[in-house]
Amino acid sequence: MAGSLGRVETQRVVLFTESDPLLLESGTTLAPVEVAYETYGTLDRDASNVVFVCHALTGDAHAAGHHGDPDRRGWWDTLIGPGKPLDTDRLFIVCPNLLGGCRGTTGPSSLDPATGRPYGLRFPDFTVSDLVAVHRRLLEHLGIERLHGAIGGSLGGMQVLQWALDHPGEVDRAVLVCASARLSAQNIAFSAVARASILRDEHFQGGDYYPSPGREQSRSPDVGLGVARMLAHITYVSEEGLELKFGRERRSDTPTFDIDFQVESYLDHQGRSFLERFDANSYLYLSRVMDYFDPFADEHAAVAALSAGETSFLVISFDSDWRFPSPHSREIARVLERAGRTVRCEEVASPWGHDSFLLDVPAYHELVAGFLTVEARRVGCRVA
Amino acid sequence: MAGSLGRVETQRVVLFTESDPLLLESGTTLAPVEVAYETYGTLDRDASNVVFVCHALTGDAHAAGHHGDPDRRGWWDTLIGPGKPLDTDRLFIVCPNLLGGCRGTTGPSSLDPATGRPYGLRFPDFTVSDLVAVHRRLLEHLGIERLHGAIGGSLGGMQVLQWALDHPGEVDRAVLVCASARLSAQNIAFSAVARASILRDEHFQGGDYYPSPGREQSRSPDVGLGVARMLAHITYVSEEGLELKFGRERRSDTPTFDIDFQVESYLDHQGRSFLERFDANSYLYLSRVMDYFDPFADEHAAVAALSAGETSFLVISFDSDWRFPSPHSREIARVLERAGRTVRCEEVASPWGHDSFLLDVPAYHELVAGFLTVEARRVGCRVA
Repeated sequence: MAGSLGRVETQRVVLFTESDPLLLESGTTLAPVEVAYETYGTLDRDASNVVFVCHALTGDAHAAGHHGDPDRRGWWDTLIGPGKPLDTDRLFIVCPNLLGGCRGTTGPSSLDPATGRPYGLRFPDFTVSDLVAVHRRLLEHLGIERLHGAIGGSLGGMQVLQWALDHPGEVDRAVLVCASARLSAQNIAFSAVARASILRDEHFQGGDYYPSPGREQSRSPDVGLGVARMLAHITYVSEEGLELKFGRERRSDTPTFDIDFQVESYLDHQGRSFLERFDANSYLYLSRVMDYFDPFADEHAAVAALSAGETSFLVISFDSDWRFPSPHSREIARVLERAGRTVRCEEVASPWGHDSFLLDVPAYHELVAGFLTVEARRVGCRVA
Repeated sequence: MAGSLGRVETQRVVLFTESDPLLLESGTTLAPVEVAYETYGTLDRDASNVVFVCHALTGDAHAAGHHGDPDRRGWWDTLIGPGKPLDTDRLFIVCPNLLGGCRGTTGPSSLDPATGRPYGLRFPDFTVSDLVAVHRRLLEHLGIERLHGAIGGSLGGMQVLQWALDHPGEVDRAVLVCASARLSAQNIAFSAVARASILRDEHFQGGDYYPSPGREQSRSPDVGLGVARMLAHITYVSEEGLELKFGRERRSDTPTFDIDFQVESYLDHQGRSFLERFDANSYLYLSRVMDYFDPFADEHAAVAALSAGETSFLVISFDSDWRFPSPHSREIARVLERAGRTVRCEEVASPWGHDSFLLDVPAYHELVAGFLTVEARRVGCRVA
């Protein structure tokens, strides 16, 4: 029987300092870089049972267990725990908040030591490779050299793919869930409207909307960020899922310009609750990183890089996901196969769209569990 | 050979007055109601060659020809003109701006005679039946009792359907292009986010954002309306269409938070140009009307009403339209057939999504031309 983790704590560590800064792909350096992370399970003596979890656009380090209230659990608590697909009785799970985020890892809302004020839009540009570089430094800090597995959904899967490309020898098993190696024009269009909503909010103030001692009354671009989240959320769920959950159910008998339909109420809640946990500048940076991600732009180089490693891949998509529909996953699998990698590419039936990666979809969980344990057995890994 | 109309003029007429107000479905009355409309072609002596054009959410009365600049033509100039599917050599075309609009017909931006100020959100609620009621009064004014045909795309098609339901004897041929008889939860969700973007714009001011003598500095909810339009526009075009037109083409070599990708530039232009021609309150009212439209909610009553008429229907959808995809059209056709109506239901191949109804898609134009002329021949109508 699968159980749940109890109380867990978020750790913080400074991984890059002024004397040892993070060298970004752009050539710019950044320091300090602090990283918030959580771990679950116990590290083996030979550090061979590590699975690294990469979160998506608006996730954080708190993937499983709870911080005091057992009813409020981490975003991937369905997947991580004793007896669960990421089985904490066997595996040691590491999940950090991303560079550029706003949940404990250095990002645009962090203080710029050069000015003593939050970076805002002065935060440097970064790429998915830079996210991976910070992940690797965290592993170094934890005394881990090699990953039994790495897993991520959406932007999380993009990081896993980039890791296998940049450091082909480090990841034994890579699980990419509803990821993409290249956003479509429509994907970019949705991101662009979300960003426009934030950037044009008059409280955005060029990104310098953070409260400061002299500016107690500063206001944030809450309208813009809320609308951005509502919009993005529509792309995370399927048409079928919205129809099943809400249909045309109404809260009001007569038309108003408030909230008449239940689906409006749901989106409104999604937008408002997002404001409590996310920073508008982080949203801009991380969504932009996704738009620019294009690791197969030079397919020849990508195939050469992937050929150098021994990573096995599990690539999962969901049939109702229209954010990154199955052709995105199949395109990833095509290039991986060209590079001679072992690839299992599966489309899982689920009515819940892109968000399915966060949900308890049995066929999906079985695939992940099987890949991280049975495959492990095949190569004689002791964690199986 | 199909030609084009030359210069045309918009007419205006007051159709309802204080002593003869418009009685809305809600029971409220409205007066005065002025209507802007255009006509093309020549009315037959027996007024038997009339085709009524109903426009979509953001259209207007200027469907064909030009107002002085031959390069800037009406929104349905592809369809209407000498030798075109709506052949002005044979047919007399009438196209008014909708009630609640902002292009010459009374709407929320019109002056409320009770206050001397624009109605804003004090404009009464109305329905698709009310739009039809105003159309019928315009025909009465023009001395027309019966329609050879009525045609509309999207919300335009909804009006045509409602007309056939409310007044089964008046429309001989009804053409519904990419219409819906019931918006899905996802359709409503997109409308809801667009409305939230407008309503939460701090310059919306409860709908009273119009300039007035004492408030020269009044500002409009341009940010909210622009974002609403950008968002809606994504749903009007197909993923394939955006990919064909823009792909991942960039205007910038390095990431910025301005406009990097061509698709962003395109959406930005769509949003900005919309501000010059549309009113935020009209957007709220008309999008809300679409959400509430549900003429088959009582299917038995709808079938009974449609059975009483002799309208023939052509119901067209486009295979790449994901705003109102083909199942919406097939559902309309199903009910029409239950009512014993002659229905031709066709899905036309076109990569341009919902917007296809505005474009020169030959198979679509042939269907419309054939239906309005060949069908006419069959019943011995002289316009063929």
